Order: sequence, then structure tokens, then C-alpha cells
Amino acid sequence: MHIILLSGGSGKRLWPLSNDIRSKQFIKIFKNEDAYESMVQRMYRQIRKVDADATVTIATGKTQVSQLRNQLGEGIGISVEPCRRDTFPAIALATAYLHDIQKVPEDEPVVVCPVDPYVEDDYFEALKKLSDLAAGKLPGTSENSAEHAHDNPSGQEAGNSSGTISGNPSAAAPANLTVMGIEPTYPSEKYGYVIPETKDPVSRVSTFREKPDVETAKRYIAQGALWNAGVFAYRIGYVLQKAHELIEFTDYDDLFARYETVQKISFDYAVAEKESSISVLRFAGQWKDMGTWNTLTEAMTEPVIGKGTLNEKCENTNIINELDIPILAMGMKNCVIAASPDGILVSDKEQSSYIKPYVDAMDEGVKFAEKSWGSFQVLDVEKSSLTILVTLLAGHQMNYHSHEHRDEVWNIISGEGTTIVDGMEQKVKAGDVITMQAGCRHTIHADTEIKLIEVQIGRNISAHDKKKYTLE
Amino acid sequence: MHIILLSGGSGKRLWPLSNDIRSKQFIKIFKNEDAYESMVQRMYRQIRKVDADATVTIATGKTQVSQLRNQLGEGIGISVEPCRRDTFPAIALATAYLHDIQKVPEDEPVVVCPVDPYVEDDYFEALKKLSDLAAGKLPGTSENSAEHAHDNPSGQEAGNSSGTISGNPSAAAPANLTVMGIEPTYPSEKYGYVIPETKDPVSRVSTFREKPDVETAKRYIAQGALWNAGVFAYRIGYVLQKAHELIEFTDYDDLFARYETVQKISFDYAVAEKESSISVLRFAGQWKDMGTWNTLTEAMTEPVIGKGTLNEKCENTNIINELDIPILAMGMKNCVIAASPDGILVSDKEQSSYIKPYVDAMDEGVKFAEKSWGSFQVLDVEKSSLTILVTLLAGHQMNYHSHEHRDEVWNIISGEGTTIVDGMEQKVKAGDVITMQAGCRHTIHADTEIKLIEVQIGRNISAHDKKKYTLE
Repeated sequence: MHIILLSGGSGKRLWPLSNDIRSKQFIKIFKNEDAYESMVQRMYRQIRKVDADATVTIATGKTQVSQLRNQLGEGIGISVEPCRRDTFPAIALATAYLHDIQKVPEDEPVVVCPVDPYVEDDYFEALKKLSDLAAGKLPGTSENSAEHAHDNPSGQEAGNSSGTISGNPSAAAPANLTVMGIEPTYPSEKYGYVIPETKDPVSRVSTFREKPDVETAKRYIAQGALWNAGVFAYRIGYVLQKAHELIEFTDYDDLFARYETVQKISFDYAVAEKESSISVLRFAGQWKDMGTWNTLTEAMTEPVIGKGTLNEKCENTNIINELDIPILAMGMKNCVIAASPDGILVSDKEQSSYIKPYVDAMDEGVKFAEKSWGSFQVLDVEKSSLTILVTLLAGHQMNYHSHEHRDEVWNIISGEGTTIVDGMEQKVKAGDVITMQAGCRHTIHADTEIKLIEVQIGRNISAHDKKKYTLE
Repeated sequence: MHIILLSGGSGKRLWPLSNDIRSKQFIKIFKNEDAYESMVQRMYRQIRKVDADATVTIATGKTQVSQLRNQLGEGIGISVEPCRRDTFPAIALATAYLHDIQKVPEDEPVVVCPVDPYVEDDYFEALKKLSDLAAGKLPGTSENSAEHAHDNPSGQEAGNSSGTISGNPSAAAPANLTVMGIEPTYPSEKYGYVIPETKDPVSRVSTFREKPDVETAKRYIAQGALWNAGVFAYRIGYVLQKAHELIEFTDYDDLFARYETVQKISFDYAVAEKESSISVLRFAGQWKDMGTWNTLTEAMTEPVIGKGTLNEKCENTNIINELDIPILAMGMKNCVIAASPDGILVSDKEQSSYIKPYVDAMDEGVKFAEKSWGSFQVLDVEKSSLTILVTLLAGHQMNYHSHEHRDEVWNIISGEGTTIVDGMEQKVKAGDVITMQAGCRHTIHADTEIKLIEVQIGRNISAHDKKKYTLE
């Protein structure tokens, strides 16, 4: 299976654990054996478990590339959007990436899904089925096949172990687009709805509906409507053709180069709403939208992550603590407490969904980040100095760079590596101190994982004061 | 007026703002003009306002000396208990300090009071009256003076502006001990009670009662009983005499030297309960015991101290944030949120009084401290390194010292001063880096206030690995 994961958003609604450069899908909050994994790590692991040969491509902006490499390694493809242009250009770009860079043929199917629902393995089984339906490998459905749906002579493909999915054996040409429809559990106003023609496991789509009010949602559900989870499959050639109809470009590199000039347009508007050949696969397994602290904490298997204590008078309260200092909660009810180097949230769970404007109003710099080469954390901010803890993963190195307006000192506190300062190479280890005047070019390569305390001294210290060089 | 402030306790009940080396009286939480002051600073300012000539002596343990000098400067006397020996030896030592070191004559009165009640200026007016009563300067009371109490021919000294205090003009010899009795506002089980003979502003004491149950407290109050606030006055010679009766010593230095061998005994047990000549001065002004977060937050004039935001759904909630990162509280009710480098407390206000066992169970080192020479804060703890921010006040210096098991690096981030490393003196300023191998002797003197990042490298880094030297 080829799968494109859409990884977007700056995730302010999960502040302080998400920030401008760390979206919610990167927060390590889900226990897997003895370690914690993020939403993106969990999803990647689940995909690999269900289909060890799946090719995974992540469509995302450039701010997430480091983080994705840090959390998922090199086994994934990344289709980087040079800027945000809504879902249709993003999907077109990722599809062109699969075709032109990964050399996937035009008739192969690809599944697109967002990176952030909280789901179990059966969801990925359903994605495989979606892929097979799009490829025509599984019998799909046709306008006149509904009457045979419950009259399956062989039993083949009529259901998986959980009984939630089945293909319809009345074969026909596959639909151009196959979407997943989530069996609704309540008349939600938060989701769009897919109205299928029949109540069969796989059915043609009659129409899509935008987010309704509760009463309308109830009516839809009575008619057999499903939630539109933004998950769909198509053959690569189909979306490439749609892309060429709407955007003038030759291939992936060309589309990448002109991406900024492409019109913003959603996939629903550009493709789905105009397409008459769409089928829908029902899915009734677990599917949770992890958009707020309220829903995210529901998925936590234990109430406390990190250093934290809840006294016996606490009820329905979660602590997620990424700081190195302990949190003590006493007598708290229905509350989430989340702490990171960016800040501390103490919120009633219901109230937590209203967080965004408060976070927007904060004028705090980013205090920590995971990068492809490791991570950094701001330890101390003074008027004319900044002290940070840098972790450089084994085998990685910084860019060769200089600063115009600040001196820097590296205090190596663990590990071994090599520094280059104004062309001079030197082996370094824990206890060594390297001083770099403003203007001096410098980098460090980690032979083993290196931790260092970097002390920056200067007026108006800024992340923008950085000039990069190529090492000869 | 001579006043002895009893400053004790490690104050775990106000964790994380109090810790083993910072007691609650040092937390800067009370707004005074544009700055925040601690309980001890507030009390000292109030004493100076009511009596500019007051001599203030603080009886305390050695762990508080640095902090007291940091917050109150050099204008106070400090009577340091070499170890804890309960209230009678502590008061005897401070009294001997006043007599032998400060040369206060035996017939002068002294007032003793705890450092931690939250009070207004009228309380200190009352202390002055207590002092005058002890000195016999004000008409006190005698066994047979009660009938004249409400029959004051001159009106002199019959009440201060707030009408809460008055001396009885029927003169008699002063009592040996004059205690303050707080007019009770509810039948508390937390306080001992003073039962006066009459309901006059100043009366002989009939008896003292230990903390009662609520029903008994109601009965006491019906009889005119007052709370025993642990505030009393006496002539210096009186307590010195009691001390010589119970402890074998010659003078202050001798008592200090043999302090460890002195029996633990409370002032109430050793003196008050055996004394027949005691009078009590009624006080009806504000008096709040600041022992828990619940009572402390009541005294805050604004709900947020430090970086913090309460959304409009919060009620009766306080944030006290000593960290440099923001706290956002949403939909919280009757809650205290307190954060320091030691940890974060999120507690229902009522529940906060049960904090002590949870703090006792924490196995965290002290992460910050104020010292006479400035302050330090731990920024990062790794397996074989510790990084701290040190602030050295202008004119101060560290001890000349060495460490056996760790190297250290000083990164000066602001200020100017002089280092001495293995006898070599050197001027230093922001941007300079000083490296010190294990065993090397070092100190730094601040010409202007200096901030530096100290990086310690070694295995088993410990505060005890420190050898002090005298500078030649």
C-alpha cells in the first residue's frame, strides 16, 4: 500500500506541548511497551504492523521536516510544501512526488489520510481495503449492485475479523475516488457527512454535506450518513490528471518550483464535489479526533506522564510534564495540567478547547525544539546573554556557521566529537570548552551523542543572526 | 522598642515556594508600591514605620542567616541558634545577645513575636504598648484594679485611634510577663487560649489553655477568652534570671558555646505556666496566620504574581509564578497554582493544607536559593554535569574553595569582577570564560553585580565536595 499522511497545523490548541514548530502529532504521550510515542510515531508503527511493505510519504511544511526525521528516521518519504496552499495542491504535490521521485506507476492506488486520529490496527486494515478498492483488486460497487449486497454466495471478502468492513462481491470498475465513512456515534456538528446510496459496507456516494447543526446531523444519521474523516484513495494517474487540468506544470520538480503561484483550493472543492464516481467504505472501529486536551487525555492509558503526583482527592485529572521539576496536584477534578519549557497549562478539560486566543496572545519565544540532528532547550535568558542545552545525535553535525553580533562558548558536558573553528579541526570531549568570537565560523560533529551548554553573549541575540558556509 | 522576631520553620507547607532552605517568611508575595516583599520584609518595614528607633533582633537557625541578610540588609541583629532547642533556650539566647552584645540594660523591656502573622500597622502599635506595659511606663493592671477599668478619669492612654487597645490607668507594678491576646473571630481549634480575669483592655491573666476542641473553644470565648498569638513582653533581667535558674551559663558567648547541651523546653512550659504575675493586652485588629496556601492567598492583593493568565471562567484562583515561563489557567475554581524552580503545585485551596506528607515524599534536591552574597539556580542536571546560574551581588564574593571530584567552568554573562584561581588574580567581565580543574582553588569577587553560568563536570557531583581556604 502507498500511503500519504497529511501532517499539518501548528497545534496551538495543545499548548504548551505543541508550539509553532512542534505540532500536536509530535507530542510523546502514548505509552507503547515501556516508552512513549507521539501520534505520528504510533501511526507509523501501526501502518508497518498491518503492512510491512507500505511506502509512507508525509506531506508537510518545511518546519516539520527535522522533527519527522528525528521521530521516524529515514524510512519515510517527505513531500515538502514550500508554503501552505490548502489540500488540493498538497495532495497533487505529494502524488507527483510518488510518481516522479518514488517512481510509482500511474495505475497504482494511494491512500491519503490525516496524521492525527487516534485509531487501532483495524483502521489500517480498512485503509488497505480502501487501497484495494481504488485499485479494483477488490470487488467494489456499481450503481446497480446494491440489491446483491446481503446475498454473498461465497462469503469471500464479506467481512474482516471485527466484522466492520466488507467488500461487495458484485464486481464493477472501481470508482475514481473511494472515501472512508466513519459510523457516527453521535450527531456531531464538528464533521462533514458522507451520504451513501445504500447501507452496504461499500456503496456509491450520493452526496457530501458540510458540517450541519445537531438537528440536521440527526436527520443525516437516520438516513445512514457517515462522518467524512478526510480519508480517501485513488489511482495516482487520476489525481495527476486532475492536477494537470487545474495547474500548469510538467513534473514534480516543476510543481515544487512554482508552488507559491498555485491557487489555494481544497481537495473537496477541486475534486470530490465535482466527481460522480465515488464510493464509500464504512468503518465502525475506534476513531478519535485528538484536537483538544479533552480528547487527547481520554486516549492516555495512565493519568500521569513525567514527574507528577495526583493526591487521592483528584478525579479525572491528567498531568503531562515535560519539565524536569515535579508537579503536585491536590483535589483537582476534570482537569489537565501540562508543562513544557514553553509554559504551564492548568485547565478544566471542557474549557481547554477555548485555549487558542490565549496562546495567540502570548508573546513568548519557542523555548525548545526537536531537530533532525537532535534538540535544543533554552535554559536562561538575560538581557545580553542566552544559555541553551544542545543535544547532538551521534553521527550528526551542525551547519558550519557564524554570527555577526554574538560570541559563543560551548561547554561540552558529555560525549565526544570534532569541532571545526575557522577551519581548525579539533577532537573534543566532556569537560572541553570552545570559545568562538563573533564572526568566527564554527561547527561540531558528534562521534557519540554530545550534550553541550552553549552560552551566547551579545546584544539583540537573534536566531536570524546566522550565516551558513559550505565546508571545504 | 526592642523586638525579638522568632524566625523558624522549614515551611514545607508552602511548597514549592518554600523549601528546606527558604522558609515561608522569605517568599516575596506581598505587593508594596511597585515591588513584592516577603513576610519578613513586610514586618520589618512595618516595625520601622511605627517605631523608627526600634532595635530588631532575629532569633533563627544558621540556615536562614544568608537569606535574612539578603532581604533585610545589615540593620538587624541576628541571634543564631547553633541548633534547634525549642523556644525557651532560643529566647534566653536572644535575650542574652541583647544584653551582652547589644548592651541593652536589664530593666529595659523586650517584645518577642513570631515573624509570620499577616498584620497591619495597628499590630505594631500594640507591640509598643506591650513594651510600655512591661516597662511599667504605662499604667498596667493589678489584682484589684478591675473595677476602675471603665472609669477612666483622664481618658489618657485609654485607646488608640482604632480603639482596639488601651492601658488601664489604675497604676500598679508591671506584671513580670505581658502577653498579647487576640480577640477571637471564631472558635478555632488551632490556637491556645488566654483566659483573662476581666474583660478590660488590660487584665491579669487567670490561666492559659492548650488548643481545645470546637465546643470547648466556644465555652472559652463565652468567658471572654483570647487567642494566644505567642507574642509577649518582659524586662530583660526577668528572662535572664529565669535562664540562669534553668541553665548553667555565664554570658551570651558561654550560652552559645554550650547551646547543644541545653535541654529542649518551651517558653510556655519553662516560664509562662509557672508565673503568677502575667497580664494580657487585648488586640482586635487584623491578625492572620499565614501557614497554608489557603490563608496566604487571602492576603494577596492581586490574583497573579509573575507570568500568569487567568481566563474569565476562573474564580477565586491565584497564580504565584517564580519561573520564567507563562502559566495559563482556564476554568479553575478555588485553586492555587504556585511554581518555582523546585516544582509546581496545583491545588484546591482547602486541600492545600494537607500538602506536607507529599512534599516530604519528594526526593528532589533544592534547585534555587537566596544567599547573603546573591543567589543560585540550577538550570540543568545531567548524569555527570550540573549547570547553574549564579548571581553575585556587587561587593560580594564566594569563599576561596576547591572541589576534589569535579572541574568547573565559569561563563561570565554580565558584570565585572576579579577572580583568584590558584593564587593568580585576574580581572574578568561579560564574555570571559574561566576553567578550573578539580583541586584548583578559586573565588570570584563582584565589582558590579555579576551573573555567570557555572558548568560543573564530574561523577557524583555533591554540595559536600567543597574545601574552603583562607585568602592570604
